[in-house]
Amino acid sequence: MADLKFSISGENVNPTKFVARSRQFTLTIDEPEGLGGTDQGANPVEFLLAAYAGCLNVMGHIVARELGFGLKSIRIEAEGDLNPAKVFGHQTTDRPGYKEIRVNIFPEADAAESTLAKWLEIIESRCPVNDNLINPTPVKINLKNATVKAA
Amino acid sequence: MADLKFSISGENVNPTKFVARSRQFTLTIDEPEGLGGTDQGANPVEFLLAAYAGCLNVMGHIVARELGFGLKSIRIEAEGDLNPAKVFGHQTTDRPGYKEIRVNIFPEADAAESTLAKWLEIIESRCPVNDNLINPTPVKINLKNATVKAA
Repeated sequence: MADLKFSISGENVNPTKFVARSRQFTLTIDEPEGLGGTDQGANPVEFLLAAYAGCLNVMGHIVARELGFGLKSIRIEAEGDLNPAKVFGHQTTDRPGYKEIRVNIFPEADAAESTLAKWLEIIESRCPVNDNLINPTPVKINLKNATVKAA
Repeated sequence: MADLKFSISGENVNPTKFVARSRQFTLTIDEPEGLGGTDQGANPVEFLLAAYAGCLNVMGHIVARELGFGLKSIRIEAEGDLNPAKVFGHQTTDRPGYKEIRVNIFPEADAAESTLAKWLEIIESRCPVNDNLINPTPVKINLKNATVKAA
């Protein structure tokens, strides 16, 4: 299959609130007040968990069809812990991002336990967001068209 | 600083539409019709790009304050390519997730080019979502309370 390109673009409304557009959709990201934000949207690391859960859900339904069992619904909980020290410029040996992400999947399915174990294994091996989290993903960040004044 | 925990939970509405709650926020994730969805929300890998851009924005403002220059706004574009073959169960040697993520950052800033280059370097080193993408992130997925029938 040919590669697909996905994209978003957006601008900040205040230092923490960022409004991203993706096709016809608008995604508003902010930080809670305790992290210096205006709390008008879920924050970036909550968006990351939502992306992950949404991807596991899609894969769950695709793989259930392949394995031929009925999957009525999936409920997913996802959580992670991170030390915000690096974000705020404090000394730490902790990484800035999630140290670990934990997910609970509650499938309502007409399937044996062994089938569900296989189901989950296949989901993990084929889920795009899972792949981008558990394996290194190359990123290229370019500074563009900056309004620059001489120092 | 103490670790912070972030979490989301949600359920699917149809095989591709997933509604996640994070604190008081509701995030609706879906797939476009061309990928088998009902197109009622951005898709998981678009959410991932939004998470990344939102995180870079927050870090951009924090680091600009630290470096002492005025940052009026940031515009961000993010895109990535992935091969959906693995998602749909086709043979491929491609990874399922983004092969690379490209970001353009357009800061409207009262700063010299060398300052902005340093600014970007610091952002990259401290952004949680950047860390979770470029470095491996451990995940633990547990099957819970599944409704199981004997095969």
